[in-house]
Formats: sequence, C-alpha cells, structure tokens
Amino acid sequence: MTKTIDLNADMGESFGAWSIGDGVDADIMPLISSANIAAGFHAGDPTTMQHTLRLASQYGVGVGVHPGFDDLVGFGRRAIAAPAVELVNDAIYQLGALRELARLEGIKIHHFKLHGALFMHAAKDADFADHLCLALAKVAPELPIYCLADSALDKAAKSLGLPRVNEFYADRDYNDEGSIVFVRKVQRLDPEKVAQKVLRACEQGTVVSVSGKIVPVTFQSVCIHSDTPGALALVKAVRNTLDKAGIKVAAP
Amino acid sequence: MTKTIDLNADMGESFGAWSIGDGVDADIMPLISSANIAAGFHAGDPTTMQHTLRLASQYGVGVGVHPGFDDLVGFGRRAIAAPAVELVNDAIYQLGALRELARLEGIKIHHFKLHGALFMHAAKDADFADHLCLALAKVAPELPIYCLADSALDKAAKSLGLPRVNEFYADRDYNDEGSIVFVRKVQRLDPEKVAQKVLRACEQGTVVSVSGKIVPVTFQSVCIHSDTPGALALVKAVRNTLDKAGIKVAAP
Amino acid sequence: MTKTIDLNADMGESFGAWSIGDGVDADIMPLISSANIAAGFHAGDPTTMQHTLRLASQYGVGVGVHPGFDDLVGFGRRAIAAPAVELVNDAIYQLGALRELARLEGIKIHHFKLHGALFMHAAKDADFADHLCLALAKVAPELPIYCLADSALDKAAKSLGLPRVNEFYADRDYNDEGSIVFVRKVQRLDPEKVAQKVLRACEQGTVVSVSGKIVPVTFQSVCIHSDTPGALALVKAVRNTLDKAGIKVAAP
Amino acid sequence: MTKTIDLNADMGESFGAWSIGDGVDADIMPLISSANIAAGFHAGDPTTMQHTLRLASQYGVGVGVHPGFDDLVGFGRRAIAAPAVELVNDAIYQLGALRELARLEGIKIHHFKLHGALFMHAAKDADFADHLCLALAKVAPELPIYCLADSALDKAAKSLGLPRVNEFYADRDYNDEGSIVFVRKVQRLDPEKVAQKVLRACEQGTVVSVSGKIVPVTFQSVCIHSDTPGALALVKAVRNTLDKAGIKVAAP
Repeated sequence: MTKTIDLNADMGESFGAWSIGDGVDADIMPLISSANIAAGFHAGDPTTMQHTLRLASQYGVGVGVHPGFDDLVGFGRRAIAAPAVELVNDAIYQLGALRELARLEGIKIHHFKLHGALFMHAAKDADFADHLCLALAKVAPELPIYCLADSALDKAAKSLGLPRVNEFYADRDYNDEGSIVFVRKVQRLDPEKVAQKVLRACEQGTVVSVSGKIVPVTFQSVCIHSDTPGALALVKAVRNTLDKAGIKVAAP
Repeated sequence: MTKTIDLNADMGESFGAWSIGDGVDADIMPLISSANIAAGFHAGDPTTMQHTLRLASQYGVGVGVHPGFDDLVGFGRRAIAAPAVELVNDAIYQLGALRELARLEGIKIHHFKLHGALFMHAAKDADFADHLCLALAKVAPELPIYCLADSALDKAAKSLGLPRVNEFYADRDYNDEGSIVFVRKVQRLDPEKVAQKVLRACEQGTVVSVSGKIVPVTFQSVCIHSDTPGALALVKAVRNTLDKAGIKVAAP
Repeated sequence: MTKTIDLNADMGESFGAWSIGDGVDADIMPLISSANIAAGFHAGDPTTMQHTLRLASQYGVGVGVHPGFDDLVGFGRRAIAAPAVELVNDAIYQLGALRELARLEGIKIHHFKLHGALFMHAAKDADFADHLCLALAKVAPELPIYCLADSALDKAAKSLGLPRVNEFYADRDYNDEGSIVFVRKVQRLDPEKVAQKVLRACEQGTVVSVSGKIVPVTFQSVCIHSDTPGALALVKAVRNTLDKAGIKVAAP
Repeated sequence: MTKTIDLNADMGESFGAWSIGDGVDADIMPLISSANIAAGFHAGDPTTMQHTLRLASQYGVGVGVHPGFDDLVGFGRRAIAAPAVELVNDAIYQLGALRELARLEGIKIHHFKLHGALFMHAAKDADFADHLCLALAKVAPELPIYCLADSALDKAAKSLGLPRVNEFYADRDYNDEGSIVFVRKVQRLDPEKVAQKVLRACEQGTVVSVSGKIVPVTFQSVCIHSDTPGALALVKAVRNTLDKAGIKVAAP
C-alpha cells in the first residue's frame, strides 16, 4: 500500500488577460503537491509565470517546468512536425525561462514535465525522447522527468540514469495495455468516480481499463489536468479521498 | 590612451528561415569581442540562439543576452506601453532562456544588453531602470550591464553596485550633450569615417557632435549595430583601424 | 427623448482555448444590437471569429470588425509606437479577414470599431485618424465608424463624409469636458447605477461627471465593454431598464 | 506545343525587418506573370503585403493569396495537426486579409495557392481539400486554385466545378508517378538545367523522373519557389529560355 503520493496539476496556463477553463489556480494550488508551470509557448507569459511561482511558493508546492509546442492558439494540443533538435531547444529555452523567474523568487525548480501534444510526442518518439534526455542530462540532471511508465521518454531517461516520476492520469481512460486513451476533448467526469479510481490505483496498483480488464499501473504521482472540465471538483474529491484513506500528499 | 577596448555587436537576430540585413553573423563574429544575442522576443528563436552561441564560442567571443520588446514584426524597435514589472519579467525570462541554452553548450553568459526600443526605454525611464536592476541584482549580480554613460539604466545599476560597461556607438551621431541622436532608419555610412571616429574616441575620449562641437565620451566598449546597412564593412574597418593603432580588442 | 438606441459590446474576444473574463458571449449576444468582433490581433482566432459570427447571426445582431494592436499578451490594451501607415494596414487586414469569414456565413459587416489602446490612439492622434479614414473611404465607405463624439477619429470621418456612430460608454467615468476617464483596470460596477446612468443619458442627453457636473453627451449607441468585471450583469440591467422605459434597442 | 504559359513564384515572404533568402522580389516580379503573396501566417505582415501588391501591380502581375500554416518560426514548412475546419478558417481569414489590402490598392485577386506544408497537406488529405473547396465555392468561386494535377485538392476543386490551374514545379524532382519528391532543404540548382527542364515540359509535356523515366506532366503554370537558393537566377534562366523559344509568359 502506498502511504505517500504526489499529486500534480498544470498551473499558470493563463495568458495575458485570459484564464483557462476551470483553472482556478488559486483554488487548486493548496490541494496539490507539484505544479507544472507553463512557460510561454503554449500558455503562460512571464508575468503569469511569476504569479504562479509565488502562489506555489505560498503553499509549499514543488514547481516544475511544463514546456509545450510553440502554439498559443492551439494551446499546445496540436503536434507540429519539427525536427527533434529544434523541439529540444524549445524545451530547454522554456526550462531556462522558468528557472530564471524562479530564481528571482528564490525558488528552485523541482521537476520537468512536457505538455499536451509534446508530452504525447515524447511518449512515442524515441528519437525526440533521446535527444531531449541528452540535453537534460547536461543542464538539469537533478530534475525528475514526469512521464508515463514504459513510454519512450521513460526509457530514454532510464537509460541515461536520469530521475523519473511515473504518473497515473486520474482523468484519462486506460486501455488494456496500460496506456491512456487519447481523446481530443475530455468530457466532464464524476468527481467521486475519479477519486475512487485514484484510491484504487494508490492502494491496489491497478486500474480498470475501458474494456473492463484489471490492469496494473506503476506510478509515484497522480496527475489531474487542470483544463479538464470541472478540474477543481476533481482535485477536491481526489484530495479529500486520499486524506480520508490516510494517504499523504507530498512531492517526491 | 586606451590600450584595450571591447567591440560588441548584436548577433543571432535571424528568426526561423529569415536572416537580417547585412547580418552575416559568421563574418562579423571573428572580428568582435562581445556578442549580444537575441533571445526570442524581437528576434532569435531557440535554434538560432544555439547556432549563435556555438559561433561565439568558436571565436572566443563573450556572449550576452539581448532582451527586447515582445514584438517580432517590429523587430523590437517600437516602444510598447507596458508596466515596468511586466517588462522586467520579460527581460528576466529572456535572460534565463539564453542562459539555459548556453549551459547546454558549456558556455557562461558574460553580459546583459537591452535591444532597440527597450534599450532606449531603460536609458530614459528611471522607474523601469530601477525595477530591472533590482531584479538583475537578485539573479545575475555578476553580469555587466551594457549602457550609455549617465543614462537612467547606468545610474540605476551604479546605485545598486552592479557592474556596468558604458558604450560608444560607432554608427550613431552624437549631440552636444553626448547623447546619441535617435533615427528611425540608419543610413549607410562610410566605413573609413566610422573607423576614424572610433579611433578618435578610443585615443582622445572625444567625439565630434552633429553641430561640430568636441564632446567627451566615456566608454569601455564600442558598439556597432549589425542591422545598420553595410554593418560588416563597418566592423571590418573599425577592427582593422584598431589593430593598426595597436589597440587590442577584448571583452572586459 | 431617444426612442431607439443601439447597444454594442465587444464579442469574440476568446483566443484558442481561452475565454475572457465574464465574456459569456452566448449570454450577452441576445441582449445587444451590435457586436464588435475581434479579428486576431488582440484576440479572436479565425475559428472563434466564425463561432461569434454565427452567434450574432442567430440573434440578428449587427456585426462590426474590432481591430486592435498586434498584441495578444497585452490584449490590445498597450499602445505600440508604430507609424500610422502600418497601423492602418493592420486594421484593413483585420477588416478583410472578418469580412471574408462573414461572407462564408452569408453575413454582411455592419460597422467598424477600434479596440482598446488603438481606439484611444485614434481618438487622440489626428494623423492616424486621417490615414485610417482615407483607407476606409476606399474599401468600406458604407461602414459606420463607432467613435467618441469630437474625437480625432470622429472629426476625420466627418471631414471625409464617412458615416459615424457616436458612443456613450456605460462603464466609464466622464470628466467635465465630456471625455472618458482612462483607467488601467476597470472596477466592478453596480449594475443598477450603470443602468440609471444609461437611462439618463438616453432620456436627457447628459451624464454626471466625476466632479459632479452635468455634462451633455451626444451618441447613437451605448457601449458596454464585455471585459469589464461583471459585464453580463451590467448588460442585463441596462437592457432591462431600457426595455422598461420603452426605449427600443436596435442597430442604427 | 504550348504557346503561352503562366510563370508563378511566391512573393512577399518577408516579415517585418526580415527578408527571405534570394527573395529579391523587386528583381523577380518583372519576370513572372503570377505572384503568390504571403498573408501573415507563415510570412508577410500587412505592410509587406501592401508593398508586394504595389510591386505586382506595377508589372501587371496577377496576384494570388498564399495561405500557410500559422507558424512564423517554421515558415509554414512544418505540418500542424489541426482539424480541417480550423485550417479552412485560417485560409479564408488570410484570403480576406489580402483581398482587403488589394482592394485598398484597386487590385483584384487573381488566384489561390496554398503554401509549403499546407500545400502538401491539401495535396494528400481529401477531407481538408473538400472542406477548403466548399468554403472557396462560397466566397471565391471565381479564383483558380493552383495545385498539382490529380492531387486531392485538384480532385476536390474539380468535383465542385471550381477553376484550377495545374502546376509544373521547375525546382523539384519528379518520381515515376509524376509526383514531386519532397525534400526538407532544396539544394542550389543549375539554372540552365532547370530552364531546359521547363522548356521540355512546355514543348513535350514530359519530365525525366529521378529514375530516368520519361513521365507525362499536365500543367498551365510553371512554379519556381522564391526561397530556393539562387531563385532569381533560376527565374531569369527560365524566362530567358521561354522567351527565346517563342513561348509567351502570361497569367491564365
């Protein structure tokens, strides 16, 4: 039985005058232990980044950089067919930008997690995953890489001895192979069902797939996407359920 | 008489498929001692930044970050009426982005120099200059700030004890007060005249103003803007003239 | 006494995955007679523009183009120091973009209204206002220009014989000269007070200035900014009050 | 034997302060009969569009809109995985923007040609091609669509009875099926060889494939990409060779 688990969510995905969906960062931040902070390419201008860093700091939440494709209008959800080396440079650029703004606040970066379509690209494309990990090994070997167990990124990080944190995706369906089912638009989910799914994963290390099969899952962090409709209710229900079950929420 | 002088130019101001003016970076880089590298807001995507860092490293040129207004189409030459705190965050973001890409190449950042209209804004607006220097004092107190002597930025940096490098602008006219005359579009200049102007400034510490007055100038670096028409010829002439006069070109 | 008045609001100021403030376009659209539709530079991507055009069409609301400065992160609220000719080209570009998407929906454009800082720039800068009106006289002489009475834009349009619609700004304070008081951030207002202010303006043609003076106002349209906090409540209250007073809301 | 042929090239692919490759628009424009003008998404800001329209008008060159993916840094050469309806809206937006700026100059748009990766996408993806042609049938049924014979776009346009102009790509290799061979980076080509290839295609209706096979080609326009290295020399050689052979260059 897992006694401590990390709970991560995407934060700081506003841009200028715009806020995202249910993304009431100020309400979600006190409930999580790790925040993935957008760094300007898919969301998150420098001043939004600063506000989000301060909010995370206020609640003692670990901050990670959340690089995405260079695509504001698509919110980083659309794959862009770019060479691996360019995408790696884009990610390192975003890492540095957040790291510097964090330094200004006296905060250290705690992890690295890709966003949206770039996350999916790294999960599947070994070439990109390898190039990315080689770069991270040079500039940030201490930062755990959040990823899906056994994905291309997980394997690339492992082969270079980089720290990894595998995730369980509370608001995504799983197939029989233990991979998440990709959907263009996530539907509004029942918070109680999501909470029970997370509890089962934490206590039993399994998830029920879309076909009804019981599938083992390995993870050290639970992810709830803050742009899922009703995200705040999901985070509340999950946190509440974990608290009641005596499972401590803390960054790795 | 000055025996050693720094020679700086803006480098890496391409963007994606586009290159700038006479900005044959590969030709200019071997002739200068300090390169101000664009960091994505007015020019310079991450991969261009990487190429420019490698080019600078190859010739032992000191690299500085060159933050500009967030305005690609205006090349950072148009002032944007934004609060000081937002502009500071933008500059720190750009600093971090370049610093991280430099780290990937095993290079340390050597200085900080604002670009275009943001440079002019910091030279005149004490509020922005003060906010910027307070931030730099936290994240990069070791980086010399390139600026015009006695400008608002120069004073702000001085008051916080931050290192400064004052500049002489080889391709700009000076008025009787020792300030540069702002022009929207710089004309093609005679390389030999520019070189003699620089030599005079280095040897005698003076410049002839637009009205013909001899005006004292204080500087530790000579700046040639790489987007001035015929920039390469200007840099060649200046470097050649300095070499012949026995004045060594080296980063501070 | 005015028997019919236009009620306009900014619509379609979402961008990609982001929606703006209280800008529940679907709730505001049925209550207004003219919609100013963002066209991509400060807000409003092409698909958002299409959705907004369809929504306006559904409620028989007149659609106008709402060009802003090229500044997504600043939501068009920050002035950019650009030559008049460039700003005019930017505005004409946005007009054409919306006009074409409207053509796709079988809708004709009904008016022209600038956004945010560009609106303020045209109100004050005669050079820009003149250049803009010369261009509009060529491409869209039939479109009424929404503007503040006696502003530079109003005068420029008048001198070329272009149709104008002067506005009363329900959610802005007026000074003794009948100009609106610029504020960086508009506060949440009392809907009932705003409604009474609009009623008075419609019935008596006056407004009470910030100093308490009764000032005459000339207008054919009432504007409520949809990014004012609580905009929906303001629009509801104004519309309700106008309805009760027997003042018909209709596009000019 | 073809007695008249159209010669088209991409024009106006500068952006702000940046110009592209050998894209000396002023030199190429007098030699061609149709100009594909970038409209802001992959290149070409509004003021660049205006300059290019004026240049085309000066030489009596037919102007077409040249919509690309919304990707400045990638110059529209990188595919973005977006729904067909969004890409269509993006293209219609760009069409309208150019059409309005052309109206300001008293110019009518003459054709429609997609750019780069969006061109390739429409050549292969029937769903996008169909959606696009349905939209064009509504807003611009008179504009010929430039495309590769028998591509998805060609078929979609044909099925809706839209006018088409098939192209021969002077600076691309052909495979045995008469399709062009995609390359990430086009090499510098021998102008004389390219000119002879075009002449053969015009006179005999054939091209020699990369494997040496003689393949029939159907076209009414010859395309030379202005971002191919040495594009100006290619255009000069082709135009010169066509002139000598008594083949008239004129827009369809």
